[in-house]
Amino acid sequence: MMAAKADPVDILRTLIRCPSVTPEEGGALACLEALLGAAGFVVHRVKLTGPDTPDVENLYARFGTKGPNLCFAGHTDVVPPGDLTHWRFPPFEGAIHGGLIYGRGAVDMKGGVAAFIAAGLDFANAHGKAGDGALPGSISFLITGDEEGPAINGTEKLLRWLADRDERIDHCVLGEPSSRAVLGDMVKIGRRGSLSGTLTVHGKQGHVGYPHLAENPISGMVKLLAALTAEPLDSGTAHFQASNLEVVSVDVGNPAFNVIPAEARARFNIRFNDLWTPATLSAEIERRLNAAAGNGVRFSLAFEARSSDSFLTAPGEFVDLVTQSITATTGRTPELSTTGGTSDARFIKDYCPVVEFGLVGTTMHAVDESTPVDEVEALTRVYAGIIERYFAAFGR
Amino acid sequence: MMAAKADPVDILRTLIRCPSVTPEEGGALACLEALLGAAGFVVHRVKLTGPDTPDVENLYARFGTKGPNLCFAGHTDVVPPGDLTHWRFPPFEGAIHGGLIYGRGAVDMKGGVAAFIAAGLDFANAHGKAGDGALPGSISFLITGDEEGPAINGTEKLLRWLADRDERIDHCVLGEPSSRAVLGDMVKIGRRGSLSGTLTVHGKQGHVGYPHLAENPISGMVKLLAALTAEPLDSGTAHFQASNLEVVSVDVGNPAFNVIPAEARARFNIRFNDLWTPATLSAEIERRLNAAAGNGVRFSLAFEARSSDSFLTAPGEFVDLVTQSITATTGRTPELSTTGGTSDARFIKDYCPVVEFGLVGTTMHAVDESTPVDEVEALTRVYAGIIERYFAAFGR
Repeated sequence: MMAAKADPVDILRTLIRCPSVTPEEGGALACLEALLGAAGFVVHRVKLTGPDTPDVENLYARFGTKGPNLCFAGHTDVVPPGDLTHWRFPPFEGAIHGGLIYGRGAVDMKGGVAAFIAAGLDFANAHGKAGDGALPGSISFLITGDEEGPAINGTEKLLRWLADRDERIDHCVLGEPSSRAVLGDMVKIGRRGSLSGTLTVHGKQGHVGYPHLAENPISGMVKLLAALTAEPLDSGTAHFQASNLEVVSVDVGNPAFNVIPAEARARFNIRFNDLWTPATLSAEIERRLNAAAGNGVRFSLAFEARSSDSFLTAPGEFVDLVTQSITATTGRTPELSTTGGTSDARFIKDYCPVVEFGLVGTTMHAVDESTPVDEVEALTRVYAGIIERYFAAFGR
Repeated sequence: MMAAKADPVDILRTLIRCPSVTPEEGGALACLEALLGAAGFVVHRVKLTGPDTPDVENLYARFGTKGPNLCFAGHTDVVPPGDLTHWRFPPFEGAIHGGLIYGRGAVDMKGGVAAFIAAGLDFANAHGKAGDGALPGSISFLITGDEEGPAINGTEKLLRWLADRDERIDHCVLGEPSSRAVLGDMVKIGRRGSLSGTLTVHGKQGHVGYPHLAENPISGMVKLLAALTAEPLDSGTAHFQASNLEVVSVDVGNPAFNVIPAEARARFNIRFNDLWTPATLSAEIERRLNAAAGNGVRFSLAFEARSSDSFLTAPGEFVDLVTQSITATTGRTPELSTTGGTSDARFIKDYCPVVEFGLVGTTMHAVDESTPVDEVEALTRVYAGIIERYFAAFGR
């Protein structure tokens, strides 16, 4: 007797009912462990810990022992729901109304997790009786509970944990909500890098009545910030937007109207494309500041340790089979994009090629987060198509 | 028998020994009351009070009942001494070493008070036996204990208290440390006005990864601040420096590197000359901001209620007799200046012509505040010369 097809909508509603606000597991990983274990996956529950951060539960499950290993990655943790009275339906109930499933995490990203788990269960059920030797390779799931939080005890450490055990992943699909307006309109094949820094301009404190005896650091700061943003960093590349610098804070903290302050600080963040590395970009920022400062403005500059490189999974066989699967189900040709914030793909890219494809992100982190039922079902078909095409291309 | 000449150095050392840190009277006004009362002055001790400010003791004393009334104004309160271990001599002892008197207030401005009190005592002692009818007018002292503090319960209210009692002052010499490098090099015949305001630029919060969905208020702030200071307000007038705007703080308070903030605030102060009033200057600031903002930057602007007008005691008979007295004693022709911060002259100018002349201010508010003994004695002779020339010019 063939097993019934897995229902991604049931799985999604079950996951939504688990209140897994970071760093709480909330029952979400236990639910996945039960489903995957029953279908023959080898499941690892991995608790990761670190100083000054909460302990976080993570999960890795694999079906098959041969390579290649196609991994679906994602997270079951969600951001807090905020004021419950603003929600049309309770955020941890999974109500369906007018063709939409409501709940925190519906799109970010229990919807994606439910869809690839359903596709994986179907794959396992179809091949389960055949024995490992008959499999074209393996599929696996890498699920963290620390994507919305500090991201310290999540995907990055879990990947190292796997590497330490010689567990190899060959290709990865991250199920983040990558679609923009409708399912299938966008797939992410890379992400910009991120670099943050703090600029301090040093002046000399004094009385506003005697400005010639003081040195106002704010004049220098205005000059440096204007110079920093006067020219664009670049005009974009084949697969990337132009790099962009945003000054996110300027602070002096002087409460007195009659005092010229001693120091002014600005904090900035740069999202950059594949023309730059954190090293070349830091040098360019320093060059611009030195040119603008001349001998007139004294400043110091410090970059945050946690920068991330940009990355690109170049269009080719793997990207093609993903887009073909999307087109086969949705009829759309997805835009190959590298826009937006960072994601856990920044860690995965150090191990294997990774692309991101998932639901429409419009309502993520918002009140009344919701996704159409039929898009969850369509996404499941896309993931199933990716598995099929993947093993057709790379399987043994 | 003629009374001995008053010794300003003794008076200064006595005053320094009174720890009259604002708002404490510290015995300083009691000391003056005793000296002046004994010499025939009518002395009023006036305690002034107001909501949310400490009560402050003030003193007004007059010798003679006829006009014109030449008033010497000043304060006996001092700023705190700071870390006592940094002082070469205790700040409330009045040590004399190497020809200098050390102590908090030595120049700002117990030195000036001691000098004009000594000159006043000598005048009273010289005329005391002659009876009021023989006096050419009156001399008076207006001494506050709230110049270094909020200046709410001090000179401003004391002047109103006098006006309410029909007490008229005809001309005033304020004994603040007006000399720059050596006694007699500068007299202040006016002061610039002061206007403070807060500029808020409104943006739209968002994620740094999606800057097109947000509106960074810091870009707008940099643009507005650059425009505010691009052109000088003026190039000065016959008796005034150019007006000057200083941005004293810029604050956003955004702790996150990945968030574009919603709002940025800047605080500024303008010291302005007689080309402007607070009203015309506010209008000019608003005009500059509107021109720079165009339709691209949304901002709001608020001015502080406590602004002060500029004022000038135009050169003429009164200023001349002051400078002649300075030259007669010191051999120097003082520069007629309107530089520096505000002083209580901003209140006095609403009642009568006022000039400021006193010791060299270099060490004021600093550790080891001190003044040469011989400059205190010379200042006393200058004040005596002012009294003599004043009654020669204006007396009856």
